[in-house]
Amino acid sequence: MWADLAPLGRSTSSGGYFRQPFAAAERECLAWFLEQAASRGLEVEADGNGNVAAWWRPEGLVQNVSHRSRGENHAERSGLGVLTGSHLDSVRDGGAYDGPLGVATALAAVDRLRERGYRPSVPIGVGVFVEEEGSRFGIACLGSRLATGALTPEQAGELRDPDGVPLLDAMAAAGLEPALGPSPLLRDVGVFVELHVEQGRDLVDRDAAIGVASAIWPHGRYRFDFAGEANHAGTTRMEDRHDPMLSYAMTVLAANKQARLAGQRATFGRLQVTPNGTNAVPSLVTAWLDARCQDEATLAAMLAEIERQATERVGRDGTALTVTPESVSGAVHFDATLAQRLSRTLGAAPVIPTMAGHDAGILSAAGITTAMLFVRNPTGISHAPSEFAPMADCLAGVDALADVLAELT
Amino acid sequence: MWADLAPLGRSTSSGGYFRQPFAAAERECLAWFLEQAASRGLEVEADGNGNVAAWWRPEGLVQNVSHRSRGENHAERSGLGVLTGSHLDSVRDGGAYDGPLGVATALAAVDRLRERGYRPSVPIGVGVFVEEEGSRFGIACLGSRLATGALTPEQAGELRDPDGVPLLDAMAAAGLEPALGPSPLLRDVGVFVELHVEQGRDLVDRDAAIGVASAIWPHGRYRFDFAGEANHAGTTRMEDRHDPMLSYAMTVLAANKQARLAGQRATFGRLQVTPNGTNAVPSLVTAWLDARCQDEATLAAMLAEIERQATERVGRDGTALTVTPESVSGAVHFDATLAQRLSRTLGAAPVIPTMAGHDAGILSAAGITTAMLFVRNPTGISHAPSEFAPMADCLAGVDALADVLAELT
Repeated sequence: MWADLAPLGRSTSSGGYFRQPFAAAERECLAWFLEQAASRGLEVEADGNGNVAAWWRPEGLVQNVSHRSRGENHAERSGLGVLTGSHLDSVRDGGAYDGPLGVATALAAVDRLRERGYRPSVPIGVGVFVEEEGSRFGIACLGSRLATGALTPEQAGELRDPDGVPLLDAMAAAGLEPALGPSPLLRDVGVFVELHVEQGRDLVDRDAAIGVASAIWPHGRYRFDFAGEANHAGTTRMEDRHDPMLSYAMTVLAANKQARLAGQRATFGRLQVTPNGTNAVPSLVTAWLDARCQDEATLAAMLAEIERQATERVGRDGTALTVTPESVSGAVHFDATLAQRLSRTLGAAPVIPTMAGHDAGILSAAGITTAMLFVRNPTGISHAPSEFAPMADCLAGVDALADVLAELT
Repeated sequence: MWADLAPLGRSTSSGGYFRQPFAAAERECLAWFLEQAASRGLEVEADGNGNVAAWWRPEGLVQNVSHRSRGENHAERSGLGVLTGSHLDSVRDGGAYDGPLGVATALAAVDRLRERGYRPSVPIGVGVFVEEEGSRFGIACLGSRLATGALTPEQAGELRDPDGVPLLDAMAAAGLEPALGPSPLLRDVGVFVELHVEQGRDLVDRDAAIGVASAIWPHGRYRFDFAGEANHAGTTRMEDRHDPMLSYAMTVLAANKQARLAGQRATFGRLQVTPNGTNAVPSLVTAWLDARCQDEATLAAMLAEIERQATERVGRDGTALTVTPESVSGAVHFDATLAQRLSRTLGAAPVIPTMAGHDAGILSAAGITTAMLFVRNPTGISHAPSEFAPMADCLAGVDALADVLAELT
């Protein structure tokens, strides 16, 4: 399966991937998924948000769809199904594993269970959520947010990609008939399990191939607009300038230092400069801070300290700063009982937090019992061409996911 | 005349101008110029580089074109003409005065001379040089460089705009028939005089409406490529990163400090970040340093010090730095005798250096006797929507230019 996906959306220069939602490479990945589902006799179901699930419903299975209760902890008690899977889109120049590994291992886990002659007591679905990375429409986990109602169709209807294409037009251009809103795919889901490549080196340090997620750190994206005064780079004396690039530069270093000292994360990786001319002092530097901390209070305190230092510098530069939170997600605590149970199932796999957002976090926040499995990443690198998980660990992931699905169904 | 130009290429949001060479707004400005020339009975001559001149050749004037010698200092001695004028293009979101003021005052100076009943002994031309700002093809003074042979047709043939459009295609799309190379417009030019809005506050400080240029500071544009390692902004520990944004940020502050302490200029106003995603540690930050100093030795020393500090930080960040000089122009010293003479003509106008490049600098370097006049700019701001010169000073500029043209012809 992995060989089929390898060339799709791959840059021949960097070796990185760009699979933007509703664009060619991601649609080819989805076509591959639909073929894989069909070849296994899985029943494909799509919602109007662009999400898809392929269901294994063993014959004779009686489903208790009318009595669904999210208060019930595990699928086998309620008769509801178990959904696994992940996403197929990628960031620009991203790696091969973030997303697709969770989809491919899910299909392989179904194969593994069938090889074992296993017959689940409830349906098992392999799901693909759309625009998990937010690389096109700016909102991460767009598909799962729409599916759970965390984002309204009205909010999503306002979204445009960097070229100004509205979400609905992009969906229509991909041949879809959009019907945004809470998803029928989740109607019969009692438990969601997402397998993902680890995006750090926690499992490497613990010498474990597979881990179970305890929580997702709270995460904020803040837009910093540093406004100054455009001017000629040659003729304007340094002391006559109001150069927002200086204010920005100091803020980058301050954010890094704050996060480093506190063991948290703060990154300025996206920037827009106006007018962005070699011989012009900029009038405006807009930068996005990505900040993640172990808890909400730490996140708020770190942001406040970065903002304080930025404001102090802005005062000295004669520039102005506006900070706009674009998205702030609280911590997600996955079902602790389930995490411990799965850890035991997998022979005492480590239970670790992650600093990355996932569709699993959105589903968990929506009240669906949710768990995540991680596959070891030797370098910890992700969102980059060199993102990697050894094949042996990926296969261990298939076994682990099969064991977990069996345990849950 | 000013009212005709005011709406062309003006942004309704910022009030700034963008008149990109060979694109609509700049072509409208040129059409305006051709109308103005025609209404004055001036003889329009275009070269194959996109430059245009409109000549006032009083009847019965005998021209000594065959005996041209650039060794001769002044037009009246050689029988060669006097060219004045400037450019009509602007940087993105630039001001109304940089360029057009030199063209409009030149036309008005011709009117003034005619009102006075003055009859020049040699032709007077009003010239418009193309792509002075380098905002589209990246090379400032493109038109005058081609006209003087400072840039070869082969070098110019390689140029592309940010959308990948080759210079020759852009010219053809504007309805021109390109024939790049040394320009017939300069064949009969003995002296070039360019009037320009001042881009600093030297004249304000000296309480003078008009100044004469002594020299242009040496000027370098250097590309700094900071290469790091793309990674996930949430999951990658701060200490595991190789973040080129940090190296860049420190370099911005170092460059500013060096220039400020030494009374020189160093600006990072243009930046390109890869992949430029909110949740990605960048793999590459490419930034352009614009540096200008009072002399070549100071420029070289300042660059060396900035590079030294950048390299030190790069070592700490585990990133890599490559510095590529994209253009380095030596100092231009305008004809000192002529400058003193024009200063006297204008009633002891101050003789001051400029830190900005101009077509006048290119023509001077090519051996044409050249002078520049500056019109006071109350704020010193240029390359920005608020660039401004009071009407009274602009009219003083017309008088000064008329006096200078009379003095020279």
